[in-house]
Order: sequence, then C-alpha cells, then structure tokens
Amino acid sequence: MSSKLIAIVAGVGAGTGAAVARKFAATYPVVLLARNPDSFKSLAEEINSSGGKAIGISTDVSDSKSVQNAVDAIKKEFGSDVAAAAAIFNASGVFVRKPFLELSEDAYTQSLTVSANGGFNFAKATIPLLLEGVKKNSQHPPSLIFTGATASVKSGAQLSSFSTGKWALRALSQSLAKEFGPQGVHVSHAIIDGVINIPRTKDWLKEAGPDGKLSADGIANDYWYLHTQPRTNFTWELDLRPAVEKW
Amino acid sequence: MSSKLIAIVAGVGAGTGAAVARKFAATYPVVLLARNPDSFKSLAEEINSSGGKAIGISTDVSDSKSVQNAVDAIKKEFGSDVAAAAAIFNASGVFVRKPFLELSEDAYTQSLTVSANGGFNFAKATIPLLLEGVKKNSQHPPSLIFTGATASVKSGAQLSSFSTGKWALRALSQSLAKEFGPQGVHVSHAIIDGVINIPRTKDWLKEAGPDGKLSADGIANDYWYLHTQPRTNFTWELDLRPAVEKW
Amino acid sequence: MSSKLIAIVAGVGAGTGAAVARKFAATYPVVLLARNPDSFKSLAEEINSSGGKAIGISTDVSDSKSVQNAVDAIKKEFGSDVAAAAAIFNASGVFVRKPFLELSEDAYTQSLTVSANGGFNFAKATIPLLLEGVKKNSQHPPSLIFTGATASVKSGAQLSSFSTGKWALRALSQSLAKEFGPQGVHVSHAIIDGVINIPRTKDWLKEAGPDGKLSADGIANDYWYLHTQPRTNFTWELDLRPAVEKW
Amino acid sequence: MSSKLIAIVAGVGAGTGAAVARKFAATYPVVLLARNPDSFKSLAEEINSSGGKAIGISTDVSDSKSVQNAVDAIKKEFGSDVAAAAAIFNASGVFVRKPFLELSEDAYTQSLTVSANGGFNFAKATIPLLLEGVKKNSQHPPSLIFTGATASVKSGAQLSSFSTGKWALRALSQSLAKEFGPQGVHVSHAIIDGVINIPRTKDWLKEAGPDGKLSADGIANDYWYLHTQPRTNFTWELDLRPAVEKW
Repeated sequence: MSSKLIAIVAGVGAGTGAAVARKFAATYPVVLLARNPDSFKSLAEEINSSGGKAIGISTDVSDSKSVQNAVDAIKKEFGSDVAAAAAIFNASGVFVRKPFLELSEDAYTQSLTVSANGGFNFAKATIPLLLEGVKKNSQHPPSLIFTGATASVKSGAQLSSFSTGKWALRALSQSLAKEFGPQGVHVSHAIIDGVINIPRTKDWLKEAGPDGKLSADGIANDYWYLHTQPRTNFTWELDLRPAVEKW
Repeated sequence: MSSKLIAIVAGVGAGTGAAVARKFAATYPVVLLARNPDSFKSLAEEINSSGGKAIGISTDVSDSKSVQNAVDAIKKEFGSDVAAAAAIFNASGVFVRKPFLELSEDAYTQSLTVSANGGFNFAKATIPLLLEGVKKNSQHPPSLIFTGATASVKSGAQLSSFSTGKWALRALSQSLAKEFGPQGVHVSHAIIDGVINIPRTKDWLKEAGPDGKLSADGIANDYWYLHTQPRTNFTWELDLRPAVEKW
Repeated sequence: MSSKLIAIVAGVGAGTGAAVARKFAATYPVVLLARNPDSFKSLAEEINSSGGKAIGISTDVSDSKSVQNAVDAIKKEFGSDVAAAAAIFNASGVFVRKPFLELSEDAYTQSLTVSANGGFNFAKATIPLLLEGVKKNSQHPPSLIFTGATASVKSGAQLSSFSTGKWALRALSQSLAKEFGPQGVHVSHAIIDGVINIPRTKDWLKEAGPDGKLSADGIANDYWYLHTQPRTNFTWELDLRPAVEKW
Repeated sequence: MSSKLIAIVAGVGAGTGAAVARKFAATYPVVLLARNPDSFKSLAEEINSSGGKAIGISTDVSDSKSVQNAVDAIKKEFGSDVAAAAAIFNASGVFVRKPFLELSEDAYTQSLTVSANGGFNFAKATIPLLLEGVKKNSQHPPSLIFTGATASVKSGAQLSSFSTGKWALRALSQSLAKEFGPQGVHVSHAIIDGVINIPRTKDWLKEAGPDGKLSADGIANDYWYLHTQPRTNFTWELDLRPAVEKW
C-alpha cells in the first residue's frame, strides 16, 4: 500500500471524530479537519507521538473555499498525487429544539449549512482523492462515510433545523453511493440512534446504566468495518444504538 | 366563513401551481407567488374576471426578505388580521442530472435553497396566518401543503442537487406536521411520482398513452381533498402517480 | 353505470367496515363479509331499508374455500358477469401484546393468517371482478383498498403477532398496486395511525379530547376519495391520524 | 468461554448458510439445520474433519414440532443447559415471479410459511438458548440474525409470494430487536440486495464482471461482524450489495 494513501476526518472534537481518527491513524496518515485548531491540536500530537502521522487543518466545511484551502494544504503535505483510502464526514450543526415560529433563519440555516453544504463541499473535495485511491489499488475500497443521527430518518416536532440538514445529508450519501459505488468508492451512511458517550455527555442518561450510551471507539470500529468491506459486499446504511435504547 | 380567509400558493406557473390556485380560488381569495410576474399575471386576470379574487406578488421564496415583503403586501390587501385557510408550497429548484464532480456549488445550492430555505421562509410566513385561521374557526382545518417528488424518497445517482432539497423539504413538513397538527393546522406532503401533464411536458412519455402523465387538475383536487379532511383524520403524506407508472 | 357494479367490504363490524359499507352503499349495491352474521345483519337491514342494497355473507377470509363460497354467492345474487367497483379489505386479526416467549404459535398465526392469507384470498377473489369493472368502463377506476395500521410500518416490542401480518399485507398491496395499476385497478393501502372512534373504544383516550380518535365516517370518506381518483392520479398509500396524535 | 456456547444456522445449503456455518465454526460448535440431510452432510464432515465441531439435524423450520425436535436433539448433544452465542436464520421460501391470478394458494403460502412461520419457530426455539448465553456472559452478545432480501423492502409486481414473507420476517426481527436488545440479545436483519455468488448462480450476471455478485464468505464476515458488536453499538439492520449493483 502506498504511503500516499491517507484518511481525512472532518468534524474532529472530543468524541466520535477523535475516536475515528485514532482508529484510522493505525493504518493511514490522517488529516484532521475542524474549525477550531483546539479541536485537533492535542489529538494530532497524540497520534504523532505514538507512531502515527496526523496533521490538523483549520477548516469550515460549510465554506467551499475553506475546504479547497484544506485540499491545497493536503497536497502540499502529501504531494499532488495524494490518494485517500477514507474520508469521514462527522461534522454536524448545532442541535436545536425550538418552537418553529421562534426559530430564526440563522439558527435554521446554521445546521442545514453544515450538513447539506458541508457534506457537498467535503464530498467534492475528497471524491477525487478517493478515486485516486481506486486507481492505486488500495487494499480496501476507498470509503466515504457520513455520520447521521436519529434525526436522519425521523423529523420530530421543533427539530426542523437539525433534521432538514440530516435528511439532506442522507440523500446526498445515497446519491453518491449509487454514482460512485460502480467506480469503486464505497459510500456509507451511519444512523447514530442514541447518545454517544463523550466527555460532554458524561452526566446524561445515568439511569440507562453503563451501556446506555454508544461507545465512540465502537463507532470507530464500525466505520473501520465498513471501510474493510470488499467490493462485493458494500453496505450503504446501518443503524447503531445501545442495546437498551428504546426505538 | 370570513371573507378574510385566503389561500396562498407559492410556485405558480403554467402547471400544478396554476391548477391548484384555480381550485382554491373557487372558495378563497388567492395570493399567487412567483418570482416572475409573467408566471401569475394572466392567471390572476383569469381568476378575477371569472368571479374569483386573485392577487399576484413577485416573490423569491428562497429570500426571507422577499417573503416578508409578500406578507406585508398580503396584509395591506386583506387587512392585518388576515387569516389563511391554505398555504401551498409548490416551488421547486431546477431539476439537474449531472455527474457529481461536474456539479458546481451554485447549481447544487440553487435547488437546495429553493426547497430547504424556501420551504422554511414560506412556513415561517404562512403558519401565523394559518393559526389565525384556526382561531377564526375556518370551516376546514387550515392546511399547509408541500409538493414533493419521486426524489423526495429516492436519491438517484447524479441527482443530489435536486434530492437533497426535496428530502430536506420532506423533513421540514414532517416536523411541522407534528408540531402544528395539535394546534389545528394540517401539514401535508404529496409525493408526485411521475411526470405532470403541463405545456412543458406535452411531448414527453407519448408511449405511455393518454393517462401516462399526472393531471395537474387532479393534483389540485387531491390538495383540495387534503384541505377538507377533518381534524380527526389528517393525512401527512400521500403518493400520486399515473396508473401505468412503473415504480 | 351498470347496475352490476358492486362494492365488497370484508371485515364489517360495528366500526370502520360498517361506515365504509354505508358510504359505498350510496352508490353501489354492497356485499358485506364477516365471519359472524351478527356483524352484518342489522347493517344490511339498515342499508336495504334506506334505499340501498346490501347482502351479507358469512365468510372467513382466512379460509380460501369460504371466500370462494362468498364469490359463488355473489354471482348467484348479481349474475355471473358481475363486476366490482370497489373491494375493501378491512379484516384484522386480534391485537395481541405479549412477551414473545409467552406467545403461542396459535396466537401468532391467528393474526398473520387473517392479514397475510386473508388478504391473499380476498385479492384473488375480487381482482377478477374488479378487472371486469375495468372492462365495463366503471365511472371510477375499480379500487382495491387495504386497511393498515401503525403496526404496518413499525414493529414494536411484543407486537410481532400483529405487525408481521400487517407488514405482509402492506407488501401484498404494494405488489398488487404495481401489477394491476397498469391494468386499470387502483390498489391502495391506508395506514390508520391512531384509535378509531367506535363503540368498543368509547372510553379510550378521553384525555385527548373530542377529536382524539379517528372518525370511522371520516375513514369512509377517505376511502371514497381514493376510489374517485382518476387513472392519472393514483395514490397507493396514505396515512391517517387525529390532529392531536403524537407520532 | 464455555464449551457449551453453540451457534445454530438454519437454512444451510451450498451457499450463504454454509459460508456462515464455516465462519462461526471457527469459534463455536455449530448446529446445521436443513430439511434435507444432503444439504448439511458434507459440510458437517468438512467442519468436523478440520478441527471444528458440527452436527446436522434434519429440520423443517416451518413446522414447529420439527423445530422442537431439533431443540431436543441439541440438548441431547450439548446438555440441557446448552447456551447459544448465535442463531442465524437463513432459510427462505422459493422465489416465485408469477402473475398474481395464476399464483396458487399453495405457492403463495409456501414462501410465507418458511419466512413468517419459520422465523417465528426459529426465534421461539433459539431465544431461550441465547438468553442462556447472556447469563453465561458470552464474550460477544448472543446474536439472532435474519437474512433478508431486496424483497424485504420492495414488493415488486408478481412477487407477492416472496415479498409478503420477507416483509413479515423483517417485522419479526424489528419487534424482537426491541424486546430482546434490552435483555442482551442482539437481533439483526441483513438486506441482501443482489445475487449471491454460489454454485447455482455461477452463470448469472456475467456481464456485471467478477465483482457483480455478493460473496457468500463476505456475508459470513458481515454476520460475524454483527455478532462481535458490543452492547453499546448494536446494529439492527444493514444492506449489502455489490459495488456495481444498480439500486
């Protein structure tokens, strides 16, 4: 496998994105994208100091120029013929539950923009690198994975700012799976149907017991599994939830 | 029934929007929204000269200020206590089938903006008028109807610019149905799964025979039917297609 | 329209089936099917004494021979060239909520058999009559309507005996819609997502207010509406629920 | 891990069932169920002679007594306190594409019975053993996996005998996932959306190239993956298809 095969993770923070980055960093150099450098700095250091390779690039996925700048930075670092083995879109707008008539246009647009425009910008930027990975006969089919949520398939009252973006992102992933699967790129969508166990959710759902929240490392394993599926057995979509979750 | 109860139709052109407007104009004064006045001028004249009442307002639904201007014009015309019996969102972005990597950000955004942002702006502007209709005990529950498409539930290869917006709009309609149903507003989503028989599609699908395309007047009937459902029997979603359609 | 065009309603009792039968009896002679004659006797008398025509036939839809006997009786009554304008499958197994390991094979099979086998038997018996209706140029496309439930699209814990049959019935209706739509028969499936207001449910959901339950007459109107859709605008599926329902 | 933890595979033939059995036999003694002993004889010998342990039991899953006999045979072989780590339902009725009016009741019932009744019988028989596996703290959460098909989510024209059973089976799996997930049993449903590469399909889809069919060993890997998911990250459903598949 060429050293030029990289993994790109958008939406790296203290939770899933970081776990996914660590997992893929065991095999590929990883590029960490987040708006705020604080979100990837210590993670990049951790990976680099433990035998892996990581670079962080401050990127606003909802801004196509910012994403293009990230691609330029990636090519500067890894060469203009860089190829990607995996690109993972884990960015998400803010979860807002608010009576619709009190929801400002800005609040509505914020989440939609991250998911619908951010997903588009990320796919536009990474698919050429993933197709390059196909040409280079990557061991595993190059993978483009989108992180969805309960709100990707249900649109609850007062949740339209979050769900419209998530439904749009799911539509994007399905369209891309149909277009790029035959070209060798594996596009997937994971429905995370529950609370992820990260520092921010430490005190949530205590009544649900120790297994009441999704494991971020578990999600990283699930994404790695999707990545290793062969061309004969591609999964577009799977749901993930704790055993005790009501659904 | 108060004379102040109006119907508002966004996305009026030569096809479905016009048929819907004519249907609702038999009962309510109608407000016709379209970007280009050419789209509603002759229709407004036709309705006004045949005993109904119609006004057209040049409006870009994807622009919240333009929608707010339309509301202002409606209040100027019908009074500040105007109430709506029905609001129908029939606007749609351009249908684009294009390899994803050739799809410009502008082209992607155009359709998404009309559906996801336009749907939001239209709902924000009309729901207060529909709630006013509830207060005024309109004969039929005030209705907010969104026009969807095959692409609202399937996201085909090379269709992401169209489908992401349509999925977002469907999500919006479901969230609004759950929030405003209990408040007496009937929110629906119609999946138009086929070609509508309008001037622009005159020469399409001739092999499918005389019934191979959806009737725009039929859709107007279907929307009127949704409008007349009582509070006990609300439909959120129905699909509509010609009998001969493959699906 | 030929006097030979009839409507057939399976699953006639004190609720929806009776309301549907009354509605269709205003236009067509109706055939009432139920296992127990007590379920249709007074209804038949009511229709016959108020200017309509109804016959009841004791039928177990889950037994193909019993259904064949019903067809024989229909032909004896209306002639061997009888045609149907509508056939409505409203039969349902018993709703059972029970821990799976305590669910007997008989209990599981009971509901499945009514829905999956009963639906099959009813469709096999009525589609030839509906196709005859197509030949006779019935005013409205001959309609085959299946009554579904929340459990047609969600399969809750401890509800497998009910939901497996309902999912099977929904699958049947979709397959038939695709096969017989092009032949002129309109096949629909209605998802009744709530409690229907019938004598048996009189004391249920009082906290939901006067509109907290579906109206059986409303469902009859909804089915009549489906029946009157033209060949250009067929609905396969719609959902129906009270405005105040949580979903 | 106790030697008493076994895996049970129903529907073992020359294809997926055999591949799944081989995969799970690397870790657990496996019980092979098929109506015809010819379907499991050589497979059992192969597993037993290569260091694993397998027994075959002639079983008709659609017959509850036959399934009970299989359980008795399992207990005789492995002890009355035998526990299961995995139970995989891979049985399927005959795929029939036939005009509905030419479809005999027997043909319709055959497929429905294998899926809807067979799935029920298999779940009733194996869930107690899987719950026993939970008590014995199996390394991986005991798993009940159902094999679905394209027809589990789409019901095509002339396919009702196949799709009604598959939809019923999917409903069963969802209900069981919701009931037994909180009890520690992982219930999954896999939608196999394509042709599986087995001896019987050797000459199919040659135009689709070497990767045009699903790999049976790949499906076995996918099921093993589902089996190894931890309690925090359960997948109920995933789809599987070749990269080149149109969908």
